[in-house]
Amino acid sequence: MVQQRTERLEAGRTSRAVYVVGTEMVVDLHRSAPPGSKLFEIQCTPAVKYRITPSTKDPFPLPLKAGTSLIFTMDKASKDVNDNKVSVTYFGNKSEKLDKAILHLTALDISLDVDADRDGVIEKNNPNKGSWKWGPDGHGAILLVNCDAENYYKVPDSELDKISKRADLKDMSRMLLRTSGPAELPKGYKLTLHISKSTAENIGVFQERTAGIKISSISDYSPVLGRDKLCHIVEYKGGTSEVEFYVEGRRFPDEGFKGLVTINLSLLEPISKGFPEVPIFTDIVMFRVAPWIMTPNTLNPVEVFVCSTQDNFQFLKGMRSLTARTGYKLNTCFQYMNRGDRWMQDELEFGYIQAPHHGFPVVFDSPRDGDLKDFPYKELMGPDFGYVTRVSLTENVSSLDSFGNLEVSPPVTVNGREYPLGRILIGCAFPTATKGRNMTKVVQDFLWAQKVQEPIALFSDWLFVGHVDEFMSFVPAPDRKGFRLLLASPDAGYKVFRRLQKDGHGKAKMFEGMKEEISVDDILSNPQLQEANDFVQSCIDWNRDVLKRELGLEDADIIDLPILFNLMKDMRAVAYYPDMVNMIVLGKNLGIPKPYGPKVGGRCALEAEMCSLVEGLGLSCTFIDDFASYHKLLGEVHCGSNVRREPFAYKWWNMKL
Amino acid sequence: MVQQRTERLEAGRTSRAVYVVGTEMVVDLHRSAPPGSKLFEIQCTPAVKYRITPSTKDPFPLPLKAGTSLIFTMDKASKDVNDNKVSVTYFGNKSEKLDKAILHLTALDISLDVDADRDGVIEKNNPNKGSWKWGPDGHGAILLVNCDAENYYKVPDSELDKISKRADLKDMSRMLLRTSGPAELPKGYKLTLHISKSTAENIGVFQERTAGIKISSISDYSPVLGRDKLCHIVEYKGGTSEVEFYVEGRRFPDEGFKGLVTINLSLLEPISKGFPEVPIFTDIVMFRVAPWIMTPNTLNPVEVFVCSTQDNFQFLKGMRSLTARTGYKLNTCFQYMNRGDRWMQDELEFGYIQAPHHGFPVVFDSPRDGDLKDFPYKELMGPDFGYVTRVSLTENVSSLDSFGNLEVSPPVTVNGREYPLGRILIGCAFPTATKGRNMTKVVQDFLWAQKVQEPIALFSDWLFVGHVDEFMSFVPAPDRKGFRLLLASPDAGYKVFRRLQKDGHGKAKMFEGMKEEISVDDILSNPQLQEANDFVQSCIDWNRDVLKRELGLEDADIIDLPILFNLMKDMRAVAYYPDMVNMIVLGKNLGIPKPYGPKVGGRCALEAEMCSLVEGLGLSCTFIDDFASYHKLLGEVHCGSNVRREPFAYKWWNMKL
Repeated sequence: MVQQRTERLEAGRTSRAVYVVGTEMVVDLHRSAPPGSKLFEIQCTPAVKYRITPSTKDPFPLPLKAGTSLIFTMDKASKDVNDNKVSVTYFGNKSEKLDKAILHLTALDISLDVDADRDGVIEKNNPNKGSWKWGPDGHGAILLVNCDAENYYKVPDSELDKISKRADLKDMSRMLLRTSGPAELPKGYKLTLHISKSTAENIGVFQERTAGIKISSISDYSPVLGRDKLCHIVEYKGGTSEVEFYVEGRRFPDEGFKGLVTINLSLLEPISKGFPEVPIFTDIVMFRVAPWIMTPNTLNPVEVFVCSTQDNFQFLKGMRSLTARTGYKLNTCFQYMNRGDRWMQDELEFGYIQAPHHGFPVVFDSPRDGDLKDFPYKELMGPDFGYVTRVSLTENVSSLDSFGNLEVSPPVTVNGREYPLGRILIGCAFPTATKGRNMTKVVQDFLWAQKVQEPIALFSDWLFVGHVDEFMSFVPAPDRKGFRLLLASPDAGYKVFRRLQKDGHGKAKMFEGMKEEISVDDILSNPQLQEANDFVQSCIDWNRDVLKRELGLEDADIIDLPILFNLMKDMRAVAYYPDMVNMIVLGKNLGIPKPYGPKVGGRCALEAEMCSLVEGLGLSCTFIDDFASYHKLLGEVHCGSNVRREPFAYKWWNMKL
Repeated sequence: MVQQRTERLEAGRTSRAVYVVGTEMVVDLHRSAPPGSKLFEIQCTPAVKYRITPSTKDPFPLPLKAGTSLIFTMDKASKDVNDNKVSVTYFGNKSEKLDKAILHLTALDISLDVDADRDGVIEKNNPNKGSWKWGPDGHGAILLVNCDAENYYKVPDSELDKISKRADLKDMSRMLLRTSGPAELPKGYKLTLHISKSTAENIGVFQERTAGIKISSISDYSPVLGRDKLCHIVEYKGGTSEVEFYVEGRRFPDEGFKGLVTINLSLLEPISKGFPEVPIFTDIVMFRVAPWIMTPNTLNPVEVFVCSTQDNFQFLKGMRSLTARTGYKLNTCFQYMNRGDRWMQDELEFGYIQAPHHGFPVVFDSPRDGDLKDFPYKELMGPDFGYVTRVSLTENVSSLDSFGNLEVSPPVTVNGREYPLGRILIGCAFPTATKGRNMTKVVQDFLWAQKVQEPIALFSDWLFVGHVDEFMSFVPAPDRKGFRLLLASPDAGYKVFRRLQKDGHGKAKMFEGMKEEISVDDILSNPQLQEANDFVQSCIDWNRDVLKRELGLEDADIIDLPILFNLMKDMRAVAYYPDMVNMIVLGKNLGIPKPYGPKVGGRCALEAEMCSLVEGLGLSCTFIDDFASYHKLLGEVHCGSNVRREPFAYKWWNMKL
């Protein structure tokens, strides 16, 4: 709708006004008429287009009635101040001229512009720039949280009220103020950028200091809006010109912040000395802060991370061999940084943020804060590598806050609803449990607030460590939905052992040559172990049903891996032998905990079963010995590694939410 | 989608399971097969319907492959525990029977039911009961905040964890748990109602203590869910039976609470001693907490409220006469309660809440908390009269927090978008102002969160007192949109005075016989007054433009009332003579501050102008003398009164949001 503004005229007076191209000015002719007025006539300069309401085709002078209004517009900005004019002449009757009201006009063309059509280019005055809509036919500009560190202080750029390096500009969204008009604004008028108090917490806006000159130094940019800066007077340059701004996000969407921010540009009109100025025109642009996005196992790896400790040489050897063969970079976090904490999966989750103009990886630092806690902030965060964390001030952190308990599915379609970026998986206590461990609310709230990978609550509190990666994983597949869900299955495990027994291998040994050595027969004749695994299978089946429903899977999309569990004193479960589902997925290459199963003809029967289950999908299994340095400490290969992956080709703003 | 549950069978074992009518049970036949199985056969009791996937038309025995599943359902609840059976026989080849797995089944029919179709009746298992949708074709049950006081403690019922009187039940929404099945649940199974931690803050659920007996006493109801009660085991009654619950809202929608709450009913399955029970079926119902709704001047009055003070006899006389004539009840708040605070409009706002089964008025108590502060809680709150307030712990309260600064428009349609309950109007500082007064955030957040009367921010900080009711009001009209917007207009005021001067009444006196007495000529020859009123007109015109845009009004929907203003030392405005727009609207009768304008032919020219402006709408003007006791204290008739009105006939849940 066209923005209308009420303008006043007064008989016997000459007044001045500024008109903004694209708006309509409305004058109540009756209100400004001298007493006794019965007729009126309008005259104006050619650039002024007008109409009278109620509309009439009669010639001037026209009868003046209560409600008679003059509505006028101009198509172009003025060259000079007051270069246009509207005048109203009032008559008592046709020959009795009573008085005249004159209005001098200065027309301005003002547009605050952003990349509302998301093509990386800032168009002129997009009609949708003030709102935001999801989808391929959507609109609305996008901001990145400037959470990488291009500065010398090694803190996230968004915490600084300055631009430290030229490179920092590319993390921001450009915004242009385009104006046309006379060389100077009429006296006392001002252009002002302004934001609400709540928006001020969420963004920062910088402006180039010098106009029209090629930027030579970063000191050309100064902060104009943000924390404690709600308003900024913008210099009017005159003629046809642009002022360039750079906008950064400072906060991710979260509980209480949907991610939408609005920036306003107002033209202020002076009234009189001592009176506040009146905003007579406001242009509005809206941005959405890009969400943090997780990357499932089906995306291509970029680099692999592990810890080096005093006792994990065997594991590192396996990982080095796997990554060397597959060609991915292996990054080792050394002891000075990890201080003996080997759980690379648990301390952090890799993700990314993306806008049409730019994007970069962002590490989400878990509130777990083990001895690895400095690694994400001190080692990972850097130029074009962002950082985010959530720490609760009131809740206790439990093992369920480790990010081995935070995974994401590949893209799925569920009952016709598309999740092109997959769905986040979080391990929790049963909703019916009166007590139990859960991921802290601040982390769950953050994950929900990103919106583009709607989370699913799984049940992981039945596990002693309590992480979803102890019973599930995803691997790529050439058919069906493009992936398979792997689930740990005690039933599948018992099936293997029973077959071995039936085939005459009851004396074959698990953990052969170790102090844990035990025969197939002995495993099958342990009723406590069977009972524990019945319980575990029920818990996993419960998750299986949730995953089928929430990811739209069929049984044929799921592969049961033969894994047995044991119970700790508190009745919570741990893997009985190295938990093969807790693997690292590097394209078609799987790095799997070496299960130390009973051997048949010199080959481990569990490895053989594992390979036979996935080799039809073109996947290659590498078994990595993590027994002493990970399995015995209640984790496995996946817990002890992390993978940064390529972002999705799919753009999140194309989702239909 | 049908809820599926994975069930386990094991060859050589007989197991037991509970089946819930309406779900599907899935058995992976391959997983449970003994080693060497090649064929299988299914047998079951007649009530069990089954299919095999992948589907086949071949007769038993069928070949057993990886992925072969049995899916079965039952149509009716069991009469006895384990009265149905499924068995699977496994074969090595056609003649070699290897083993058999048997599953005994008990079928239950379980449904947690609410009034999801909003007709006041609780239907059976509404397929939409777990979600909420706005609009006439929408669905989803509704809760009232139980904010009235039917108890002996004189606190809102929602603050108590008990039902004090039978009458309190009607403020709650009924919820039924309907079950069918054998006389008792199989051993160890439990039915449990459960809610999330955040929901627990927002609702309370009560259950009748004794089943099937006519309720004789309020002690028959006990609290089962709410603050610190997240889980409740529900007694299973056996056969076909119902358990009745009553649900109350305890918190209005607000920042951080959208108003939606979910209640879950789960069937828990025992696994083994010491293991947590597994929820094998969950039924979900969703409620929305009814919003607080304001009532515009166009709704029929029910009762009028004023204060009696030592000095307002003249005003009370006028109000008594007006209400007596119009037939509305006049309630007087006496000095023991008001302690000299006469601003009945400012301390509170009347509104209401509504559900299909019930509704009642709710007073919103302003954080202003003048000497009238006890009145809403102590005098108004009571049986079927609710109370709500919002007080900021961090912000300072200003004059803009008085509810003379909180109004609501009649229903409007704006660019095709309908607001069938009107829009809330809030007075603020200019968005461009670097300083200025505003309504506190907690109150604004509350108003926005109600959603059904989307607020509009007006500019009222230019006024010394700073209330929107100082420059605007709505009156009913028989034509156009059903109402007119009345705006104070200095231009219209000057027009009246100039016409008087031109017609030879320049010596006529305002405030005749008072110490403030002044002639028309003197008013018109005061340039400071003219300048002040130019400023005021600009401020009101700014609001006029916002109101036109946000309420979809045309100029013909607006009437300018002749009011002049004056400026205080801080350059903020107050009415120069009694501010006629600050009126009380009782149907077609307007109680208007008597302006004490110059007299022409014995009649006040301002009263005459006022009458002529609205009498065409069938409105009758009564001028009430509030000069000494209200106007001189910077308020008028509207500030000193309040009106409780009938609710809208339109039901808020029919809005398309």
